[in-house]
Amino acid sequence: MLYTMFKVPDHQVAGHQACDGVLGPLIDDSGNFYKPLQSDDRGSKEVAFYTSFSSNTNIPNHIRRFFPKFNGTQLIEASDGSGMHPHLVLQDVVSSRLNPSVIDIKIGSRTWYPQASEDYIQRCLKKDRETTGLTLGFRISGLRIYKNERSGFWKPDRNVIRKFTAEDVRLVLRQFVSSNSPSDSGLDPDCSFASTVYGGSGGILAQLLELKEWFEHQTMFHFCSCSVLMVYEKESVLNERSSNAEVKLVDFAHVVEGKGVIDHNFLGGLCSLIKFISEILPCSDEHTAKASLQDPKKNYFNTNCDTKK
Amino acid sequence: MLYTMFKVPDHQVAGHQACDGVLGPLIDDSGNFYKPLQSDDRGSKEVAFYTSFSSNTNIPNHIRRFFPKFNGTQLIEASDGSGMHPHLVLQDVVSSRLNPSVIDIKIGSRTWYPQASEDYIQRCLKKDRETTGLTLGFRISGLRIYKNERSGFWKPDRNVIRKFTAEDVRLVLRQFVSSNSPSDSGLDPDCSFASTVYGGSGGILAQLLELKEWFEHQTMFHFCSCSVLMVYEKESVLNERSSNAEVKLVDFAHVVEGKGVIDHNFLGGLCSLIKFISEILPCSDEHTAKASLQDPKKNYFNTNCDTKK
Repeated sequence: MLYTMFKVPDHQVAGHQACDGVLGPLIDDSGNFYKPLQSDDRGSKEVAFYTSFSSNTNIPNHIRRFFPKFNGTQLIEASDGSGMHPHLVLQDVVSSRLNPSVIDIKIGSRTWYPQASEDYIQRCLKKDRETTGLTLGFRISGLRIYKNERSGFWKPDRNVIRKFTAEDVRLVLRQFVSSNSPSDSGLDPDCSFASTVYGGSGGILAQLLELKEWFEHQTMFHFCSCSVLMVYEKESVLNERSSNAEVKLVDFAHVVEGKGVIDHNFLGGLCSLIKFISEILPCSDEHTAKASLQDPKKNYFNTNCDTKK
Repeated sequence: MLYTMFKVPDHQVAGHQACDGVLGPLIDDSGNFYKPLQSDDRGSKEVAFYTSFSSNTNIPNHIRRFFPKFNGTQLIEASDGSGMHPHLVLQDVVSSRLNPSVIDIKIGSRTWYPQASEDYIQRCLKKDRETTGLTLGFRISGLRIYKNERSGFWKPDRNVIRKFTAEDVRLVLRQFVSSNSPSDSGLDPDCSFASTVYGGSGGILAQLLELKEWFEHQTMFHFCSCSVLMVYEKESVLNERSSNAEVKLVDFAHVVEGKGVIDHNFLGGLCSLIKFISEILPCSDEHTAKASLQDPKKNYFNTNCDTKK
């Protein structure tokens, strides 16, 4: 049996990080991400979701690729050395990447679900109202933008992110695809990577639109409090003019049964994010992103260009 | 000056009806609908919306037709004879119709908006959770289905409607387009008018999809607590094989500024309603409805048919 080296990932931008007795995730060299099962029923609910999802034959392959691969659960030594603890074994979505820029966006103006406890509902509602969740239909919950070899990453503090306004969100989505420094607040982001990262047939906008199409008719799951992760590498853009930009869905501790109804809460938030991102793209790039879909919403983007530019 | 005869409309299915000192709406013979201004700020807010909307040049004509025409305000004798009261003068959307069947659907899982008072928010939230609003993203708030000349209309009581479950909503949306009696609960609705009323290039589904496309990019208004009215005439379907089915948006006392963000709450609920209605249609009819749009989402409906039928 081979010995597996576990280490603490340095690319994680949101979610449960090791602190004050809370277990953090681990990674190995084989591209696995070990997420400790949360001790209340969230852990078992997330396992239940991954188990059900991975065996569900109604998920088309072009949608399945947006979810981290699930490799079961495993009992391993916890990140704080406190003993053995069960972990979800997932695909590490950034393992193959050098200096990935990552943004974690929690989707939905409502992060609670009707079946939850009153206490939980009130806590979520408060957070939804205090952040941009309620007004924008999504909120940024984590962020890590690569600057350059010398300066490393810009990774604002959680408490800073939590206070983001609608204008901050707009700015960050531009900074995410800019070549100039995101931490220099005096600088207007140049958005020079927008058409490579957000636009194009394999870009983030095209991927989000593919997800949207699925959410318009899937009624199996409601993804409460789930995040869209957007990942790319600045160096790939500079060297290869390709971003390998990728969209992943993560965090399924609060997925509930759809019971024949679409996830209108997630879909609404996703459409709002799509609108924000499409506004950063020059019109011609939007068209490229759209043209790659089987379903070109020409009218939508024409209107956009006519009125905005 | 001509004398105008005002009368109480018998086709209204939701909203403020005359009772206990609350003023009800009036109609005249020229196709006008007089809606009494509500005494708190709702009345003035609705006037402000209609005024702003009717002079807004960014509203495309194919969208404007979904809104009742606005003919200003007028001081007229109130419906209860209590004196002169200001009224909104609107197009009576069913004036030209004989025995219209009408359904009033309040769109959105959230009927409150961040700027409202805490008391108002809590009242709305309670109602959203008690009705299907939260789970379905919409709730039926009024209903009137024509049966035949002898039996007249089926118009369930408001308190019955308020208690509709998801299954009741599914049933009512089928009863709405059926030739057999909607009040006979033992009968399975035959949905024999579905393809004429919901389907086809001028049908309700095609109209809702046109609205959806607009809501995917309009960021001027957020339509809180606004309703979609669906209207058609059973006799037209029987005699002319045409339903003159029409979708209208009504109730704008709680429209707030969009501030550059799409109305993800309305859009999500609208997409959920679209999914409910598309499931009632046979696949071939869905395709007809879709084909009439500039934007045929073939993939969406193919998937639908493959998995459901």
